[in-house]
This record gives sequence, structure tokens and C-alpha cells, in this order.
Amino acid sequence: MAAMPRPSEQQRPQGSRLRERLFEVVFESDTLAGRLFDLGLLWAIILSIAAVILASIPAIARSWGPTLKIAEWVFTIVFSIEYVLRFVSVRNPTRYAGSFFGLVDLAAILPGYIDLLIPGAQSLLVVRVLRLLRVFRLLKLGRYLGEAEILLTAVRASRPKIIVFLTFVFAVVIIVGALMYLVESGSAGFESIPSSMYWAIVTLCTVGYGDVVPLTPLGKAIASLLMIMGYGVIAVPTGIVSVELARVSNLPVSGQACPACTRSGHAVDATHCKFCGALLNPQLDAARDTVPPDQA
Amino acid sequence: MAAMPRPSEQQRPQGSRLRERLFEVVFESDTLAGRLFDLGLLWAIILSIAAVILASIPAIARSWGPTLKIAEWVFTIVFSIEYVLRFVSVRNPTRYAGSFFGLVDLAAILPGYIDLLIPGAQSLLVVRVLRLLRVFRLLKLGRYLGEAEILLTAVRASRPKIIVFLTFVFAVVIIVGALMYLVESGSAGFESIPSSMYWAIVTLCTVGYGDVVPLTPLGKAIASLLMIMGYGVIAVPTGIVSVELARVSNLPVSGQACPACTRSGHAVDATHCKFCGALLNPQLDAARDTVPPDQA
Amino acid sequence: MAAMPRPSEQQRPQGSRLRERLFEVVFESDTLAGRLFDLGLLWAIILSIAAVILASIPAIARSWGPTLKIAEWVFTIVFSIEYVLRFVSVRNPTRYAGSFFGLVDLAAILPGYIDLLIPGAQSLLVVRVLRLLRVFRLLKLGRYLGEAEILLTAVRASRPKIIVFLTFVFAVVIIVGALMYLVESGSAGFESIPSSMYWAIVTLCTVGYGDVVPLTPLGKAIASLLMIMGYGVIAVPTGIVSVELARVSNLPVSGQACPACTRSGHAVDATHCKFCGALLNPQLDAARDTVPPDQA
Amino acid sequence: MAAMPRPSEQQRPQGSRLRERLFEVVFESDTLAGRLFDLGLLWAIILSIAAVILASIPAIARSWGPTLKIAEWVFTIVFSIEYVLRFVSVRNPTRYAGSFFGLVDLAAILPGYIDLLIPGAQSLLVVRVLRLLRVFRLLKLGRYLGEAEILLTAVRASRPKIIVFLTFVFAVVIIVGALMYLVESGSAGFESIPSSMYWAIVTLCTVGYGDVVPLTPLGKAIASLLMIMGYGVIAVPTGIVSVELARVSNLPVSGQACPACTRSGHAVDATHCKFCGALLNPQLDAARDTVPPDQA
Repeated sequence: MAAMPRPSEQQRPQGSRLRERLFEVVFESDTLAGRLFDLGLLWAIILSIAAVILASIPAIARSWGPTLKIAEWVFTIVFSIEYVLRFVSVRNPTRYAGSFFGLVDLAAILPGYIDLLIPGAQSLLVVRVLRLLRVFRLLKLGRYLGEAEILLTAVRASRPKIIVFLTFVFAVVIIVGALMYLVESGSAGFESIPSSMYWAIVTLCTVGYGDVVPLTPLGKAIASLLMIMGYGVIAVPTGIVSVELARVSNLPVSGQACPACTRSGHAVDATHCKFCGALLNPQLDAARDTVPPDQA
Repeated sequence: MAAMPRPSEQQRPQGSRLRERLFEVVFESDTLAGRLFDLGLLWAIILSIAAVILASIPAIARSWGPTLKIAEWVFTIVFSIEYVLRFVSVRNPTRYAGSFFGLVDLAAILPGYIDLLIPGAQSLLVVRVLRLLRVFRLLKLGRYLGEAEILLTAVRASRPKIIVFLTFVFAVVIIVGALMYLVESGSAGFESIPSSMYWAIVTLCTVGYGDVVPLTPLGKAIASLLMIMGYGVIAVPTGIVSVELARVSNLPVSGQACPACTRSGHAVDATHCKFCGALLNPQLDAARDTVPPDQA
Repeated sequence: MAAMPRPSEQQRPQGSRLRERLFEVVFESDTLAGRLFDLGLLWAIILSIAAVILASIPAIARSWGPTLKIAEWVFTIVFSIEYVLRFVSVRNPTRYAGSFFGLVDLAAILPGYIDLLIPGAQSLLVVRVLRLLRVFRLLKLGRYLGEAEILLTAVRASRPKIIVFLTFVFAVVIIVGALMYLVESGSAGFESIPSSMYWAIVTLCTVGYGDVVPLTPLGKAIASLLMIMGYGVIAVPTGIVSVELARVSNLPVSGQACPACTRSGHAVDATHCKFCGALLNPQLDAARDTVPPDQA
Repeated sequence: MAAMPRPSEQQRPQGSRLRERLFEVVFESDTLAGRLFDLGLLWAIILSIAAVILASIPAIARSWGPTLKIAEWVFTIVFSIEYVLRFVSVRNPTRYAGSFFGLVDLAAILPGYIDLLIPGAQSLLVVRVLRLLRVFRLLKLGRYLGEAEILLTAVRASRPKIIVFLTFVFAVVIIVGALMYLVESGSAGFESIPSSMYWAIVTLCTVGYGDVVPLTPLGKAIASLLMIMGYGVIAVPTGIVSVELARVSNLPVSGQACPACTRSGHAVDATHCKFCGALLNPQLDAARDTVPPDQA
């Protein structure tokens, strides 16, 4: 994020310097221009989402429909120009286009154009909400990004266990779905195995809409077992995340890399690198809040 | 809370001494007058809430309506007088008016007067339930206040993570809401993006009223994914609070090091070092129960 | 429970010895008679509960009603005789009558007689299910009782925090209930504050029957906030119990009592008593891993 | 799983060597033939489950019914042949038949034949989804099996506590069921104690279909208590699993002490002591990935 000192800047061609200037405005927020750009972006995102949501309400659409439609097109064009600017200002355009933020930036404008072919697609412009992540740093939300980082790390570390758990849930849903399809064959909502599986998910996740309910005594008994299972089994992902979060939060691995082998992930009480045995720098702890957020 | 010795009290003007006397009765509960005041307050709060609730039940309102209305007015006037007394007895009235309890005290009388302008507002007098916090100390519930303090500390420490989590939930709700508005465009309850977002919240939080349900196969598939996500994602706030609570609860290892062997990690009820058997300093414990609750 | 050696047994009067014999049969399960008594009790409880449940099913009651009624009376009389035997065989009858099991034993027969006055009360005989706790030891379920003990200890230790939490939930329910009574004044199910409070509980606990749902946009917005709160707030009791359970399970405080002052509750890494400083016996730790796995 | 070197293989009779060859193909996946067999099995399972599910959808069954029926029979016969091959290739056929995978393999073909007697039973062929566990190793999912192992260990260790908890839940359900049968005797859905127990489970597990709801004020009050209990009590299994999972997960601090400074608490991926930088013994790690998954 921080503008790194670039040696021999005067030797670069004119185009490259313009590109760098653009990069500073569009991607960074250290300069006044960069901050104003981010602030404008923040409001454009919020207003464009508000316009999409308002346009979907029949009563409002009746009287303000055309105005909102025009507003949405203005925002789509503005964001399109911004996308092009970002594309030309980065050194590696293909890498930007394939990055998380590059894809979000694209997804934030595509539905506007798709709407010409498939009317209604414009509603998907609400994915612009993800673009807010980009302007978080403007709001001095660095601390929250740090917390999000911890949560993400814990969730990422839990992923294998969560996948195993979801596989188990999926197997239960498919078996109970087939069972209920047999048992409740006459009842509404159990006409096919996919329908029964939908009911099984609604029940296992303790949502319980009540649009599909078992009617036979045997069906009710199976449903009861499934509910108790769902009620107890929710403990598993909770336990997984709690444990990982406790590990991530408690280690909080000091963020420092070994000065000898550059590998990181050392516990805060470590004085020597656990991979090569070199002495670790103790003073780096102060730098903890400067970890840069994920960026394009 | 305890009446501190105030040197040179005789030099103060008459009004100041009267104010202090009033303060002792209205805010403290060490004197007999203070205890009786608190006891009266406790019953006034309970009876006034009961009156509001009873007055809202049609069958009771028909026969006892006028009586309950009068009772409510009596309580409102009594609490208004109490509010004035509190206001004049504190040294810094503006600070009291802006404090948590000052605002609760005001909120406990305002709806009574607003009811003259907007009939029905009187129901909001139930916010008086928050005033019960004030009389907790009368009930010797100090221990519970301590536990509440621990819970609050854990929740407060979890706040940044919870905000990040709720932001994520909000983004999911807005995107799924727009998606379902497109997919289920014909179904009841998905007529606008806000309606669909309401459905998404009802589903994600596993409440599942069933007043709005997806009808198309694609809608049911998206709903299933949302349910499974809601079912797994509930693990995150639970994990956050568990970890913070564990940290807050486990800290009370008294923090003191053994004066003989300097090792720490002793339980709060320990009087001797568990490693060398030397006597621990006991005086640090005394300060624990005197932490004053949040007050005006 | 175990038959303690009673010195000078021959000096006791005849009645006392008969009572002790009875005590051995009725309360203990070390002798053959005691085991047979417990086994009979186990089946009597299960059959009597089955009879109550079956008698409540209309289709079965039509053809088997009288038979089941007679069976229920037989069980009630048998349990009454047993209650009298227990009452006369214990040394301190009043203490037995007031104990948990004494009250359960009484509650297991009373509804049978109340049924003569209030028809239908016999259904309450299902409280006999609690009597099963008494015969757990027959099934060699000692280990499960130990686990139940740990759970109970954790829940009991969590009680102050849970009470604080439920007070908070209650305050939220009363305030949201009054608010929704105002906002949704015309809708079905919000006719009084108690009705609205019922809806608030159904929503906050994520049950969501759907028998009462908000209809106005403002009502739906408040409901959404309440749902998200309920979804996040469930983390609190979970966190509380997890932490307490971790403490109870992990400390498991080595089980050893101080040889000097006999007080227990020492951490597993303690070498000295934390109350008097005496040296603890370290050899007990070895027994920790030899706890036999689940067996008959 | 790995093909162990078998000394003196040439001394065995011809039949035994054929059986071993077959074993390598059918049970193992180290050889090309074994891998191809597993790959074919994977697709056969997925396609056969898809066929069962598709055949249950009325619209598809109308036009593709006979084709899907034939496909299902082909898969059933293929799996039957595979079952026979497995049966003859293992050294101890009876142990295989009684093992978890043996039973799953049998359950994956039986419904196909039962369908001849009881039409519709073929839907139960979805239990084939459990067979996917067998081909997990093909997908290089060894890591996931390791995670599943940890989860299973934690759940297994939680079993006694969970059983105690479910016994408690069952007692609450039976008592509340009988109580609501009395209180709501006139309402739909409370006609018998089993019906009321079904409602109690739906409520306690926070599913809340809304097909059965209390109508009387007293019934609603009891339901409110049950909901709050369900909401709080879900904390117990979550706490149990969290604690066990933390214990199982945290053990892998490799347990090894530094050979130089003797301090322990090193992460499993550490090769050097984090306190003094000395080399740790690496050989303990090697055993980790060779834990064989549960197999016939």
C-alpha cells in the first residue's frame, strides 16, 4: 500500500510515469487525489446499491422507475471507466483481472450490460456491496481488517474439518431424503427425493419453514430423530471454529518472519526460529498494526 | 458508592448540604432512608410495568382500562418528581442527564407525556424495565453484577470481530436477497429486494417463519445453500464469544507472582504458591468486590 | 449407598434391625433382594409410563382404555406401597420426604389420586421418568452418572452468568414486545403486549413457528434486528458453558486432597497445597490414564 | 493399506496368489488396475445415486422411467458382482461381511432386490453414498480422512456426556409433552401424548415448523419456557464438543521436549526448539500420515 521508493524513476518513459501517477490516485489513498477518489467511490457504491434496491420496490418503481434506471446506467458507466483506469494503471493487467478485487470490479459492472439482453439482471449489481471492502481503508478500519484477518485464518484453518462435516451432513440429507420419500410417499412436499432432501435440509438446519411437514406417525418419528441430530450436530462446526479461533487468537503468531530463513508462523513466546534455530528479532512486535490488507 | 469522608463540610453553604443529604437518599442505599427509597422505587417500577402490560390486554382493558390509565399517570408523575430530585441532587446535572442511567430515567417518563400527542405511546413505558438495573444493588445482587461485568467485557472485546461478522452477514443477505428477487420473481414475498432480504434474514438466522418460502426448484436450491451456510456460520460468533470469555474468565489467575519463587499462574483462591508453598500476598483480592457498578 | 459397617448392631432393638433389612432391599442394590427389587422397579416405571402414553392415543384408548386404566391404578398402588416402605425404612423420614428423590417418589403417585378429582391428571404420571435416575446404578451406569456430575457442575457454575443472560433476554423481550404491539397494532397476534412478547420469544430463540408474523415494513425491520440479535446472542450461553466445561474438565483437579489440610481442588501441575503449602502426593497422577473404557 | 512385502510368497498355492492379486485390485489403489477399479467404482456410485434421484422426480420418471430402471438394475448387478469379488478376495470373509464397509456394501445392493417384493424400496439405494468413503483415498483425500479421524475421536470422547444430555432432553420432552396434552387438550396437534412430544421436540430443537402451535395462554407460557430452555440448552452439546475437540486438537503439540533445554510445547511442524534453537527429533512426525483409515 505504502508508496515504495522507486530508484532510477527518472529513467522511465513518460507513459510509465503517467501510469504510476494514475496508480497512486486509483489504487492508493495516501495522496489527496487518492483520498478524494476513494471517497467518491464510497458514495457511488452506496448510492448505486440504494438505487438498485429502491428500483425493485413496486410502489417506488412506478413513480421513480425511469430516474432510477438512468442513475443505474450512470453508475455502471462510471464504474466501467474506473475499471478501465485500474486495468491500464497496474503493471500486470492480467494478474489484476484475475485477482479477487479484479473479479469483483468486473462483476460490479457486467450485470448492467447483461440487463440489455436479460431484463432484470441489473438487480445483481448489488454485488457492488463487495466493493466496499476496497474502501474500508479510507474509513481507517485497519483494525477491523486485522480482526477479519484473524477470523478468516480461523475459518480457513477449519476448512478441512468443515468440509468433512458438510460431507457428513450431505450424506445424512440424501439418505433421510430417500427414506422420507418412501415413508411419506403420499404427502405434499415429499413427491420426489430432491423435494424430500429440501425438507431434510430445512429440518436439519433447524430452520423449519413448515411448508413441508411429515404427516404419518413414522415420518414424524424420523423427523424427530433428524431434529435432535441437527440440534446436537450443530455443536460440531461451532466446536471446530472455537478451537481454531482460540489457537489463532492465542498464539497470535507475532507476525514476524525469521531474519535467517524468512519463514514465519512463530509463537509470540519464541525467541528462536522454529525452522532454522536463528535468533528472532524481538522488536518487530510494534509493527503489528501495519500489516497491509489484501489488495489488488 | 460509599459515602466518602468530606473534609471541611461545615464550610459549605446550606443548599449544598441539603443537596448532599438528598443525594444520599436518592442515589445511595447505605442509609435507612436510601434503602426505603430504593425499595419503593423497585415496587413502583414493577407495578408500573405490570400496569402497562395489563392495560394492553383487550379483555382487561375493557373493565379496568380507566383505573390502569390513572395508575400509569400516577407512576409517571412519581418518576418525574424522582427525575427532578436526581437532577438537582447531583453535583454535575448535565453529566447525569447524558449518562446511561440519566437517559434511561428520562426514557422512563417521556412516553407518558408523548401519549398525550400520540395515543398508544404509553406502551413504551416498559423501558422502565431497564431501571431495575439501578435497584439491583438493593437485592444484594453484587455477585451477579460482577458476572454481568465479565460477560460485558467478553462481549465488548468481541465487538470488532462481531462487527466484521455482521458486515459479512449483511453482504450475504443483500446479495442473496437480490438473487432470490430475480429467481423467485413471481412468488409471494419476493416482490422486491427488501422483501427478499427479509426472507434471507429469516432463513439465515434459522428462524424460518414459513410466511415466505421459495417455490421454484432453483430458489429452493439457493435457499438450501443459505440454510447450510447459516447453520455453519452461527459457529463464528459462538467461537468468538467463547474465546473471549475464556480469556476474560481465565485471566483471574490473580496475576500475582509468588514472592518466594516468582512463578505465577495461581488460582484466585490460592493463599500459598502451588510450586514452592510460600505464602502469597492476599491483599490484592480485597479490591475485587468493591468495583462500583456503572452509575450516574 | 454402600452398606457401611455398623458397630454394636446386636444391641439394637428388633424393629430397628427389620428397618435396616428393609433399607437394604429398598434403597440399596448390593444384595440379591435389593437387585431384584430395583429390576422390578425399573420395569414397573417403564411399563407404567408406556401405559400412560398409550392411554392418551385416541385409537388405542377406544379399545384398550379400561385395561390401561386398571394397569395405571395397579402401578399407582404399587408405587404407593413402595413409597410407604421407603418412608418407614429410612432413619430420618422427614429428611427423605423433603429430598429430591423423596419429592420425585411422591410426584410419581400423587397424580393418580388427583385424577379422581380432576380427570386427566393421570397423564402427569409420566414424571415417573425421573424415577429412572434411581435405578441407573442397577444398569452399572455409574460412569454416566459421573459424566452427568461434570455437566451439572459446569451448568451450576454457569448459573450466575446464565441468570444475568436470561435477565437481559427478558428485558429485550419485554421492550421489543411493547414496541411491536405499537408498530403492528392491527396485525393478528400482536393484540396485546403478552402476545407480542410470545412472538418475540418465538423469534429470538430462532424457533419461528410462523403462527404470528410481522406484516408492516417497520415491523419486519424490527423483527430482522431481533433475529440477527438472537442469532448472535445464542453465542453467549454457549460460550459460558464451554468455558465452564473446559475448566471443570481440564483442571480435573487431579482429585487429590492435601494430606495436611485435606482440602482439595488443586491443579494437576501443583506440587504444593495452595491452601496450606504442604507437599502434595505426586504418585496419584499415574492412575489418571488407567480409567477403563466404556464397559458393561 | 500399503502393499506390505510378503516373504516366502512363492511357497503359497495358486488360489491364494490369485486371491491376493484380486485383493490388490479390489481393495487397494497402489497398482494401475487398483486405481482404475476405484475410478470406475467412483463413477458407478455417483451415476447410480443420480439415477435413483432422477427416477423419483415424477416429470422425469414419466419419460425416462424405464431407462433409469434398467440403469439401476445394471448398477445393482455390477455392485453385486463386486461384493462377491470382495467376499472371495479377503482372507477372512466373515470378518469382512460384519465390518462397517462390508455392511455398507451389502446395504448398497439389497434394496435393489427387495424392490422386487416391495416396490419403491429401490430408493434406499442412495445409501450407496456411504460407499464414497471407500474411494476417498483415490481422490488423495488422506488429509481429510485425518481430519475426520480427529472429529470422530472428539465426538466419540463426547459420547457419554452426549448420552446423558439426550437422556435429559428425552425426559424434558416426555414431561412437557404430557403437560401440554393436558393444557392444550382441545387444540389440533395435541390429541395424544406422542403428538405433544413431537411438538415438544420441534420446539426444543428450535425447528418450529408451525404445523402444531399452542393456542391457550397457559400453553403459550409453557412453550415460551421450553423455547428459552432449548435456546440455552443447545449450549451444552456445543460446549461438550468444543472442549473435547480442543483437547484432541491441542494434544498435537507433538509432545516432544527439546533434547538440549528440555522445554516442551513445540508445534508439530517445528524442527528447532523455539527457546534455544537446538534441533528437535524429527522422527516422531513420520508416523503421523500412515495411520490407516477404517477399513475392512
